[in-house]
Order: sequence, then C-alpha cells, then structure tokens
Amino acid sequence: MHEPQVADALAATVLERCDALAAFSEEPDRLTRRFATDALRLAGASVADWMRAAGMAVGRDAIGNVVGRYAPAGEAATASYEGASGFERPAAAPTLLMGSHLDTVRGAGRYDGMLGVLVAIACVQRLYDAGRTLPFALEVMGFADEEGVRYGTAYLGSSVVAGRFDPAYLDRRDADGVAMADAIRAFGGDVEGLTAARRDLAGVIGYCEVHIEQGPVLEAEDLPVAVVSAIAGQTRARVTFEGAAGHAGTVPMSLRRDALCAASEWIVAAEADARAEEALVATVGELAAEPGASNVIPGRVVVSLDLRHGDDATREAARERLRERAVAIGAARGVDVDWSVVQETSAVGCAAGLTGLLAEAVAAAGHRVARLPSGAGHDAAVMAEIAPVAMLFVRCEGGISHNPAEAVQVADVAAAIDVTSRFLELLARAQ
Amino acid sequence: MHEPQVADALAATVLERCDALAAFSEEPDRLTRRFATDALRLAGASVADWMRAAGMAVGRDAIGNVVGRYAPAGEAATASYEGASGFERPAAAPTLLMGSHLDTVRGAGRYDGMLGVLVAIACVQRLYDAGRTLPFALEVMGFADEEGVRYGTAYLGSSVVAGRFDPAYLDRRDADGVAMADAIRAFGGDVEGLTAARRDLAGVIGYCEVHIEQGPVLEAEDLPVAVVSAIAGQTRARVTFEGAAGHAGTVPMSLRRDALCAASEWIVAAEADARAEEALVATVGELAAEPGASNVIPGRVVVSLDLRHGDDATREAARERLRERAVAIGAARGVDVDWSVVQETSAVGCAAGLTGLLAEAVAAAGHRVARLPSGAGHDAAVMAEIAPVAMLFVRCEGGISHNPAEAVQVADVAAAIDVTSRFLELLARAQ
Repeated sequence: MHEPQVADALAATVLERCDALAAFSEEPDRLTRRFATDALRLAGASVADWMRAAGMAVGRDAIGNVVGRYAPAGEAATASYEGASGFERPAAAPTLLMGSHLDTVRGAGRYDGMLGVLVAIACVQRLYDAGRTLPFALEVMGFADEEGVRYGTAYLGSSVVAGRFDPAYLDRRDADGVAMADAIRAFGGDVEGLTAARRDLAGVIGYCEVHIEQGPVLEAEDLPVAVVSAIAGQTRARVTFEGAAGHAGTVPMSLRRDALCAASEWIVAAEADARAEEALVATVGELAAEPGASNVIPGRVVVSLDLRHGDDATREAARERLRERAVAIGAARGVDVDWSVVQETSAVGCAAGLTGLLAEAVAAAGHRVARLPSGAGHDAAVMAEIAPVAMLFVRCEGGISHNPAEAVQVADVAAAIDVTSRFLELLARAQ
Repeated sequence: MHEPQVADALAATVLERCDALAAFSEEPDRLTRRFATDALRLAGASVADWMRAAGMAVGRDAIGNVVGRYAPAGEAATASYEGASGFERPAAAPTLLMGSHLDTVRGAGRYDGMLGVLVAIACVQRLYDAGRTLPFALEVMGFADEEGVRYGTAYLGSSVVAGRFDPAYLDRRDADGVAMADAIRAFGGDVEGLTAARRDLAGVIGYCEVHIEQGPVLEAEDLPVAVVSAIAGQTRARVTFEGAAGHAGTVPMSLRRDALCAASEWIVAAEADARAEEALVATVGELAAEPGASNVIPGRVVVSLDLRHGDDATREAARERLRERAVAIGAARGVDVDWSVVQETSAVGCAAGLTGLLAEAVAAAGHRVARLPSGAGHDAAVMAEIAPVAMLFVRCEGGISHNPAEAVQVADVAAAIDVTSRFLELLARAQ
C-alpha cells in the first residue's frame, strides 16, 4: 500500500489540481475567491468531480460546503447523496471527517486550504484505486468560507457543520451591499436549513486537516511535515503610551517624556520575553507616533500587540508580564500607559489519541517527528468544538502564505499523502 | 538707571504690546501672521509707532523689515529715515543691532519673535525717558520673515540684512499661487533693491537678540533668563530598517527579521547615547512601520532622526556612533539598514566678547548665570554670518512655543529688560 511512487503520482495530481483551482478567481490577474461567489461555485464543482472520481458520493450542505463520502467496509457504495441540498448518510455510521477550505484571501496563493482538501481526496483515491475500504466512512469537506474576506466572519463553513452558525450574520452585507442570506441563496444554499445542518456527532471519530505551515519552521528544520500540537490561543491588545510632545531642539534629554522611547523600550522587552518562553510569539505590527513630525518629540504612541501560544496559561502569564512591564517602563519615564485587550481566544488542543496516531504515521514514513503549535487559526479550531481533531502541517517555501508566491514541493505533498494514508491505516487498526 | 520698578513698568507695556500685536492675524480665531501679509503690515506699523515713541527714526528696508535707529551720543536725533524704502544712516557710525522677528507660524503664540523686538524697544525707551544716549547707535530690527511659513524659506528678513538673500526665491509661489516677488511689491518692498539692501558692516558692533527659550530648562532651573552659548548645529537623517514581513502567529521569534524590533532597539540606544553626552539631543519623531497590520511582523520601518548640539564635532561624532550602532543592530538581526543624511547645518557660536558682557549683566542683575545652547534656529544664526552675536533666553511656561498656550511671566520680561539694559551699559563702558 505504501509504495512511494503511488504517493508521488498522487502528489503530482494534487499540485495540478491546485493549479486548476487557481483559475477560478473573481479577479483576472490574481487569485481571489470569496465565499459564495461564482469562482467558488466553479472550484467546488471541480472538487466534486474529483471526489466522484475517487469513488465518493457527493453533496453540498446548507451553506455550500462540498462534502464527499467514501463508504466504509460492508456498506454498498452509493451515489444517493448526489444533488441533495443537505447531505444524508446512514445514521451513526463510524466516520472520520477530513478536509479544509476552498475560499481564499485577496491575492491568494493556491495551497492555503485547497491542499488539505485535495490531499484528503488523494488518500481516498489511493484506497479506491486499490479496491479497499476502511472500517469507517471517510467524509471529505471542502469548506465554503474560512478566510471570512467577504463578510468579515471567518469559519462560516465549519461553523455550520459544528452547529455554531450565528443567524445574526445573515443580515451582514458585503462591500457591494449583498446580504449574506441572499448570497447563500444565490449560491444554492439553504438559509432556513443552516441551523439544522449541524453535523450529527453519532459515529464521528474525529476531524483531520492537512494544511500548509504558513511559517518557516519546517524549512528551517528541513522536514516535509509536522504534527500540530495545538492551535494557539491569541491575545490582541492595544497599548497607548502618553508622554509629552516637545521641541526636538530645545527640550534636553533629561526633561523629556518621550512616548516613542517608552514604546520602543517596551517593544524590545516584549521581544526578549517571547524569545525566552518556548513557542511564545509576541508581535507589534502597528505603531502610530503622534504628532509624527521629525522635529517634534512624540507625545503619544499607540501600538498593537499580538500574543500567541498553544497553552492558555502560558499566554496569560506572558500577557500579565508584558502589561506590568509596560506600566513599569511608563512609570520610570513619567509616561502614562493604557492597556486594553481587544480580543482574546483560547487555544485549541489537538486530540492526544488522533495526534499520537499521526505522529506514529510520520515516524513510520521515515521522518523525524516534529510537533508544532499552529499560530494561525484553522477550520480544525472550530471542528474541535464537536470532535477530536488532528492536524498535519506541510512545509511551504519561505513560510510564505496569503501571497501568490505561496509554494510547496511535490515531494512534501507526497509525504503528506503517505503520512495521512498511514494514519488512516493505523486508525483502522485501532478501531 | 536700574530701578526695578522701571523695568517692571516697561515689562508690563511689553506684554500689552504682545497682546496688541496678536490681534493682527490672517485668521479670526488664532494667530497666524505670515510674511508680507496685511496682518504683518499692520503689526509692523504698530511697532514703528512704538519705535518713534522711544525716540527712534524708523524705516523699512527692501524686504519689509521694520528698522528703528536710536542715534548715539553726539549725533543729532533725526527723523530723516522716515518713509525711506531702504534705510539710510551716517556712514560707519558705531551701531549695535538688536531685534527679532514679527512673523509667526500658524496658530502661534504671541511671544516667539515679538518679545525680542519689544524688549529691545523697551531698552531704548528707558534710555530715551532718561534723556540718555550711548556712544553707539542702537538699531532695532523687526524681521518680516523668520518662520518661513508662506514660502518655505526661513530667515528671509535677516538674510536680506546679511546679504544672503537668494534671488531664485523670488519665483516661489505661496499656497494661493502668489509669487514672492509680487508679494514683496504688494508689501511695499523693493524687489530690485534686495541684494543691495545688505547691511553695511562698517561700525557694526554686533547683533543681540532676546527670545523665549522654547524649552523647559529655565523653568526646571528656576531662572528668569539664560545666556545662549551657541545655536546648535543639526543633523537630520532618515534611517530605514529592512527585515522580512511574516505571519504574527506562525513565524517563531528565533526566525524573525522584525524591522520594528530592530528600529526600537536603535531608538532606545540613540536615547541612551544622547543622555550620556552633555547637551546632546537626539529625537526620533517619525516612525512608519510596514505593512502595518496587527497580525503581520513589520518588514520595513523608516524613522527620522534629528540630532543637535552646539559643537559640530560633538554632533558629528554622535552621528557616526548612531550610524554604526544602527548597522550593528541590523547585522545582528539580519535586518538591512540604510542611513541617509537629509540635511546638516553647522552650529553657530555666540561671540565670546558680547556673550561675556551679557553674562556679566545677568550676574549684576542678581541672577545665577546659566549658559544654554539654543536647540532651535534664530535670526541670530543668520546675523552671525556678518557680525558677532549674543542671545538672551527668557523663561517660558512649560517650554511651550508655536502654540497659543505660549506664556511668559511679567517678572521674567522685566528681568530681560533689566539684563539687556545693563548689557548696553557694560558695552558702552567697553567702547
């Protein structure tokens, strides 16, 4: 089953399909494929074709997620789900959910999301080509919205499956004034059925997602794949340093209350703090200095802080250290500090059982097992609300994503297919 | 001659006159008085009246500077300069020049510039009221442009007196499209006579300017006045830190090339360097971080640097230290540093002789003698190109200037009048 050339051929097909999907764009010169657009409909239709070619029954649920089902051993393969607005299946059939998303940001790369859907289909194709089934069904999902570009609401697709869709969203309008409810209807969805479209949990083993890393660690470690340990929790804060503006020529250093010097001292301290804590990341991405003239001492500086870690207690402790540090730096300089948390989300742990099997599969495929927290959010974070989840990261060039320069190596995609296939075998044995 | 109540009364008059001049504005709700405007013409007419009331002959030179002359001992007082477009005077008569400027920035205070003109007039008034003359003439100048707001050319007034006027300026247009040449003509000036309006240096003893400090040192030192040691030289530089942008969640701290962390480290280092060097000031007033999103590591940061010191060698050494420090910080972080000097002006030393007499006058008036560099530019810096200069700073509230909140205490203005009068007596004795 694990002949390398099979995975290589499947990987080449996956990359060809990523290229083919990239043609479905709202914009002629770059890849932009937002929720419920014609571009997304066309991409979904291609994905459905590939699912069918891999022996899957295909349907679309109420929000327009494309769902393919590969029947388990002992159940006759069926095409009866075809064309259903929702997706019907035998009650309580043991099922492993897989997948990722098919929408993109503006000016996107061609792998973020799509790779996970197509690797899952490749794994089914491999089984189908070998005339095999597993003791559980495989259900591959191509989510209709994860990036949230059109309505500012990330994870729409997986939130419907998880039963977390907020009907208040239906009144939101996109930049052209189109209400979400109308967009869903035009997309062939079922607005009234959104809440009921929650996935029945009976029989669900878990959710497994393959995704590009979107970071540089695998490249630095020279590894094709890594097991995701957790999806990091995040604190977003706004820190304001309020000192006193003044003439750059006439106020001696000893009499200054320079808000930018205070902010700079804190930025360096935040960096040092994050460096000292394993897997903690702290980022100041925005800084506004006022009044912002070369010959005026900055009187006020506002910075953003983005703090992430896979363990909430670690992140919260860091948040408190950084807040105290800002206050202490301000106090020493006669600069007032205002600290306000803008948003805070908890970490999502990956399930020990599934993740252990995934690690075993990585080792069996001959790779060193690396475990990485995911600093970015993924559909798996939403799916974790209803099922155990596991994630596999695939190396991407330079850690670049959300950019046309996004790139993966065919050998790394083959490794991902190989590892995921081995994971399915291990899971079958464990059932 | 040095009865305190005389100086107090004169100081009260000076403040009333500052208030009266503040009524001459281009804008109804705040003080804005740019070069060659009706507001400036009206202010100049009031100043001319006060000069005449102090026994001075008054004229306007080719650019519209108001000039009053108080004849020396042994020369008959004359009004023959009245109405002259230029300003005629006995050849090679020993003369001390005094004054400051009458134009303002937008939304100005009422003392920056005007105080120096009115204190000089008050000192003449004191002599005139006592029926006294000095062995040299006093010539008080109210310069028509120092701030340079209208044409982006600071020191127009003093540059004509110093013979440094650049005729290329005449084609410049203000925001309304009015060429400078037309503005000067409309103001009653003599465009053709600008170059010839250079002040004949024969007999000129020097130039003495009283000005608000525009900084907080005198307030911190609890002193009414200080002797200016030099007008600081200035280096303006633009420093660019070019690292790599990246995802705030997925790039570990160890793999970052964060341009903002590099810039922050350097800003803190520049502050420490300036603090360690007596009278050096270093200011980063502008900072632009790109791409400037809270969840993206800054890939590029551009900052301004404003570096000033009264001694050029000290400033240049600091400039080199800061440049080397930026390069070293960048090298340690994999961040490219581009350093470009935007502008550099040399320090202007105040004349030892005149400044020594001024310090003697401060001490004689019963004040501790403080010597301060001027971090801001002044007409004295231009006048220093043709004559020895001395400057006296007057304490201003909170160090605030270029702002309606600009404020001085009447007692401090009285001290400035007292000190300047004593300085004139000392200078007379020294002639």
